[in-house]
Amino acid sequence: MTEKLILHEYSASGNCYKVRLTAAHLGLALERCEYDILKGETRTPEFLSRVNANGRIPVLQIGDRFIPESNAACFYLADGSGLIPADRFDRADMLRWMFFEQYNHEPNIATMRFWLAYVGEARLSEAQRAQIPAKRTAGEAALKLMDEHLADRRFFIGDHLSLADVALYAYTHVADEGGFALSDFPNVGEWMGRIARLPRHVPMTA
Amino acid sequence: MTEKLILHEYSASGNCYKVRLTAAHLGLALERCEYDILKGETRTPEFLSRVNANGRIPVLQIGDRFIPESNAACFYLADGSGLIPADRFDRADMLRWMFFEQYNHEPNIATMRFWLAYVGEARLSEAQRAQIPAKRTAGEAALKLMDEHLADRRFFIGDHLSLADVALYAYTHVADEGGFALSDFPNVGEWMGRIARLPRHVPMTA
Repeated sequence: MTEKLILHEYSASGNCYKVRLTAAHLGLALERCEYDILKGETRTPEFLSRVNANGRIPVLQIGDRFIPESNAACFYLADGSGLIPADRFDRADMLRWMFFEQYNHEPNIATMRFWLAYVGEARLSEAQRAQIPAKRTAGEAALKLMDEHLADRRFFIGDHLSLADVALYAYTHVADEGGFALSDFPNVGEWMGRIARLPRHVPMTA
Repeated sequence: MTEKLILHEYSASGNCYKVRLTAAHLGLALERCEYDILKGETRTPEFLSRVNANGRIPVLQIGDRFIPESNAACFYLADGSGLIPADRFDRADMLRWMFFEQYNHEPNIATMRFWLAYVGEARLSEAQRAQIPAKRTAGEAALKLMDEHLADRRFFIGDHLSLADVALYAYTHVADEGGFALSDFPNVGEWMGRIARLPRHVPMTA
């Protein structure tokens, strides 16, 4: 890639970590630009007009163009690489797990982590507090589905790391911070260990 | 495609309509298999073990293999066609709108439609009712973002229909059933008209 890559991010966000982990596996350099979402730094007029009208991070900047949505940013970086399966069915199946991640996993597991570990339970609104039981149940169901899928597989698609693993690893490996008991999902535990031992792996805190 | 394509669906679902609309634009024949989600027909042991362990429709069956998640199923059908941009940035940008659709649009606009037009407001749980104001606000914000993006564009990516348009059209064009005032978003209205006039377009009820 010849254009400079800049990641607009909040580094504690798993969605932002996905993009850094993808770049690490591809050996790509990313410049990083940090925003404090707890202080509303992604809702300023300047951010909304220049970076992302949706007021969210991560956003991948490529030269002077911008790609919001973590999984789309990962796809941009990995396009044409071994992180996206060459087989048509496998490629769609990878996207299936990435859409599952954004629909069934992130809104439950990432939100619970953000509420409990970052906002703090005492500062939640009444409406947020009322959603906790449903989010806990749905998050556990997502982890169970992953655990069953991984019963006889090393990675989500085929025998290699793909963006499906990257997308699902980001919030799964810190799910305990949202009150989820990862020890209940042993296949997920082995898969996480497998990912963390890959040569180019980088931790979330790097 | 040589393998038989079967869509496991609930035909009133916009997520299922996306797959039919994609197939129509590609001139592909889909066999259709209907399930009544209000009667729990996608949560039976047989459905969970054979079609989708996540208990949801649509699922695209290709021979004896299955792709859940509407946007992944559309990607499978359209892979290699003009519905997916050939340019790398545009391809990622298309996925950006498809992830936006599943994260910011569908959980608000489709859920409100399902609750108000299919379940019925009187039969909602206390917890569901408590979420209505937030879902209305978030759904309106999604429509506003679309409206601003479409101010100077004919389609979401470039000058042609892509899967981003298909994914966003499905629930937008019936958003009034969820209590959203589409007349507040004139650019969205013109874009919907443009899509409905395309030669191979099929309505949701077809």
